[in-house]
Amino acid sequence: MAPSKKDVPVKTMALSALAELVGGRLLGDGTTLIGGAAILRDAVAGDVTLVDKPRLLKQLVNCRASAVVVPRGIQVECRPTVEVDDVHAAFARIVAHFRPPRCTTGAGVSPDAQVSSTARLGTDVVVHPGATISDDVTIGSGSVIHAGARLMAGCRVGCDVTVFPNAVLYEGTVVGDRVVIHAGAVIGAYGFGYETVAGQHKRSAQLGNVEIGDDVEIGACTTVDRGTYGPTRIGDGTKIDNLVMIAHNCSIGRHNLICSQVGIAGSCTTGDYVVMAGQVGLRDHIDVGHRAVLGAKAGVMNNIPDGAVFVGIPATPEREQRLKQAAWAKLPEMRKEFLSLQKRLAELVAKLDEAGQCKVA
Amino acid sequence: MAPSKKDVPVKTMALSALAELVGGRLLGDGTTLIGGAAILRDAVAGDVTLVDKPRLLKQLVNCRASAVVVPRGIQVECRPTVEVDDVHAAFARIVAHFRPPRCTTGAGVSPDAQVSSTARLGTDVVVHPGATISDDVTIGSGSVIHAGARLMAGCRVGCDVTVFPNAVLYEGTVVGDRVVIHAGAVIGAYGFGYETVAGQHKRSAQLGNVEIGDDVEIGACTTVDRGTYGPTRIGDGTKIDNLVMIAHNCSIGRHNLICSQVGIAGSCTTGDYVVMAGQVGLRDHIDVGHRAVLGAKAGVMNNIPDGAVFVGIPATPEREQRLKQAAWAKLPEMRKEFLSLQKRLAELVAKLDEAGQCKVA
Amino acid sequence: MAPSKKDVPVKTMALSALAELVGGRLLGDGTTLIGGAAILRDAVAGDVTLVDKPRLLKQLVNCRASAVVVPRGIQVECRPTVEVDDVHAAFARIVAHFRPPRCTTGAGVSPDAQVSSTARLGTDVVVHPGATISDDVTIGSGSVIHAGARLMAGCRVGCDVTVFPNAVLYEGTVVGDRVVIHAGAVIGAYGFGYETVAGQHKRSAQLGNVEIGDDVEIGACTTVDRGTYGPTRIGDGTKIDNLVMIAHNCSIGRHNLICSQVGIAGSCTTGDYVVMAGQVGLRDHIDVGHRAVLGAKAGVMNNIPDGAVFVGIPATPEREQRLKQAAWAKLPEMRKEFLSLQKRLAELVAKLDEAGQCKVA
Repeated sequence: MAPSKKDVPVKTMALSALAELVGGRLLGDGTTLIGGAAILRDAVAGDVTLVDKPRLLKQLVNCRASAVVVPRGIQVECRPTVEVDDVHAAFARIVAHFRPPRCTTGAGVSPDAQVSSTARLGTDVVVHPGATISDDVTIGSGSVIHAGARLMAGCRVGCDVTVFPNAVLYEGTVVGDRVVIHAGAVIGAYGFGYETVAGQHKRSAQLGNVEIGDDVEIGACTTVDRGTYGPTRIGDGTKIDNLVMIAHNCSIGRHNLICSQVGIAGSCTTGDYVVMAGQVGLRDHIDVGHRAVLGAKAGVMNNIPDGAVFVGIPATPEREQRLKQAAWAKLPEMRKEFLSLQKRLAELVAKLDEAGQCKVA
Repeated sequence: MAPSKKDVPVKTMALSALAELVGGRLLGDGTTLIGGAAILRDAVAGDVTLVDKPRLLKQLVNCRASAVVVPRGIQVECRPTVEVDDVHAAFARIVAHFRPPRCTTGAGVSPDAQVSSTARLGTDVVVHPGATISDDVTIGSGSVIHAGARLMAGCRVGCDVTVFPNAVLYEGTVVGDRVVIHAGAVIGAYGFGYETVAGQHKRSAQLGNVEIGDDVEIGACTTVDRGTYGPTRIGDGTKIDNLVMIAHNCSIGRHNLICSQVGIAGSCTTGDYVVMAGQVGLRDHIDVGHRAVLGAKAGVMNNIPDGAVFVGIPATPEREQRLKQAAWAKLPEMRKEFLSLQKRLAELVAKLDEAGQCKVA
Repeated sequence: MAPSKKDVPVKTMALSALAELVGGRLLGDGTTLIGGAAILRDAVAGDVTLVDKPRLLKQLVNCRASAVVVPRGIQVECRPTVEVDDVHAAFARIVAHFRPPRCTTGAGVSPDAQVSSTARLGTDVVVHPGATISDDVTIGSGSVIHAGARLMAGCRVGCDVTVFPNAVLYEGTVVGDRVVIHAGAVIGAYGFGYETVAGQHKRSAQLGNVEIGDDVEIGACTTVDRGTYGPTRIGDGTKIDNLVMIAHNCSIGRHNLICSQVGIAGSCTTGDYVVMAGQVGLRDHIDVGHRAVLGAKAGVMNNIPDGAVFVGIPATPEREQRLKQAAWAKLPEMRKEFLSLQKRLAELVAKLDEAGQCKVA
């Protein structure tokens, strides 16, 4: 999607033309020639860059970009500027002008894919060479299954879904519409449940599956295990980052944002619009309320109420945790002062005693 | 394995017949018609559900299930009941009646798999299309190698092993009998060992392999690195969840339970029946004793004795950690009281001084 | 690479010949017959082992190895010894004598690989069966692409690169020379960036790519996400362990060592020679200075200066953290003493009051 500039004919353009392209307002020299687009950190002379927050203006001073795109309300003095309503939409348009994304053309079903004769595929489905579509799988129209993706028997995939290379959907996985499953993700492996009988760990039943709602995105190398007897569920609109673990029997709500390396143990539930930052862990059977926020690395041992912000290990309301952290920061100093206080009290008692003024000990 | 009820002819059955199917004792109306089976959270009218612990009885009140399976000793008043000895075995039998798991029939070795002419395969081995079996690999009878699994040169795999799609076994990996390796797992990649010479990190020798005992299970996207000169070992009966990291030269004991996202650094050893909860981390060269338990997110910096329960970062005996956590919870309050105590002592000293009764400062 | 001894003709050798093989100095009985090589923990009679640090000498006493390789300066009394300059180079040579690593012969481009007609491959490139090389991909001479690896359109891979089985490089990934990418790694998946509009999480632009320098190693199941508008970068010589997450827009410096399960959020930068121990987490937009060291499980919430050593959650300079940990360890005791001090002060005040000597309260 982003071949280096070396290989691509540079489509140099006057800044005035770029402003027109994105429907923006030109401020400064419109004849400035622009040959590329890059973020502040990377931009070189000839590039246009973007500043989406006022606090980044100081970085612009040392940036060699020849021009800048800003949202209405940010004043730039040092560079020709294009002012727009939606700075990210405009900048994306400009980047795509200089480095057009590839369109993966609708190549249909490759004869080099393994597609079961009992699978049912909608119109305009693309199956790349080396993908596997097993018995009784159904795939809705417009979906794209990349090389090495494995849809095991009985999977039911909706419309306009993308399954990237080498992702694996175990038997009976159900996937809604417009879902994106990234490379290496594994949906529906066995739940980690055992009963120890005579010194052997005996695996629990693995009769369930995974059901993924509409508009869900699942990151690279993320794993969602099947339920014991029924589905593990991911609600509509929920986005899951890379390397996340969601265990058997969980029921994740709608529109959650679950960042990288979060681990959710068995039978947890979450409400809608829950946010979990990176490396959060939930023990099993936890219920997380609607719109709750869990800070990075939080270790959740108890249910979380609606709208709460919890952080720390064990997870604690943020305000409480901040007080503890402040006290914790003062702890070495407090210990020193405490020892001195102890000594001074002992001295006071000794002096009073010596003076015979009162028997205090 | 779990196609939705919509696609499957519903095999409605009277509760009395279900009771008979699982050898259970019927209590209440045996003519109740049952068309499915689901856990308390998911069950609808017409379903049978299960209650395996007395404390779940209160959830049953609001559940719409038409009947319930319980172990002997749990009294249900509000619903027709089937009482059994082993509630999970019985419920699995019932779920399998309504949604029979697929049997992946012994399809033999697919002509669309890549199998080296020097590989030796036992009887009844199944190799799915798109799998790779390299030179000198041996596979015991009854094993199943799924699509996209890669068994690199010299791997030796036992009998009745399942390697799920897209798992990778590097050269020389040894796998015992009845092992399950889930999708995306990587066994035998290079150990992360470097010597820095003249500013370059030089990789250590990678001459070892991984040896996995009998009855081991390895979760999706879990990685076990090869030893430097010899094997990294996983003992018989040990179960490893998804996204776990086991580094080079480790020797994991028998019947361990290692939960998701645990990371074990190089050259660690564990005894038998060790349990590690989610997201535990061990530094390198740690020895963990038999039957030790490590709590979720524990950070282990020292050896762990037999039978010990350690939690926290750094990992600490549980009882000790609990005292610390209690003190930690009181810390902000204690700090406030401490400052007031300090002030009161200073006032006392000042007053005594003023009264001229004794020179204490 | 390490088939068990059972399958391999044992090349028994006199210790004197082994000493000669590695250019070492023989001490003790050179006629000792050696049939294998193993580390202290694993060695049996007939094996040669190694001791690379004096503190391991006590483990040698109970080891059954028939001989030992040591670096100059370590005195062994209990066993015939080969003394060498570089003990690991010598021991690797000996291990390779007994268990020669396989050479994956230059088999060229397999007809069973999917190679686009627009891909350009250098001389001596090996593409294994079942790999995918998409449109406009370039691969430098001497590189090896293993089974199931997916190089999506427009990837540019340098010389002498190894891409292990089932690794995935998304569109436009740029890879330097002598890079190793392990099995299951995913390079270039979408960044986890969303804007919430009318209750829907709208994915940010995904127009960037990943650029990997020379001599980089990327561990199994590690994920590096593409930049929003431009590259996510991994600098020359940096080594990344398994299951690491590097998010969109990061710029990782040169010669970093990033251990397993580290998570680096979006737009972070690191200097050169940074070391991150296992399970470290960085929030987004963090800058880490040259040669900084982050201890295991550190949770980094602020920028890290050059050369600093930070540990803990939140990450704190090591010395400071050690003081806090010490105070924390004493916390329950301190609390007890504090309560007693509080009581004693109250008693003192009461006694003084009672004696009528001064009004202090």
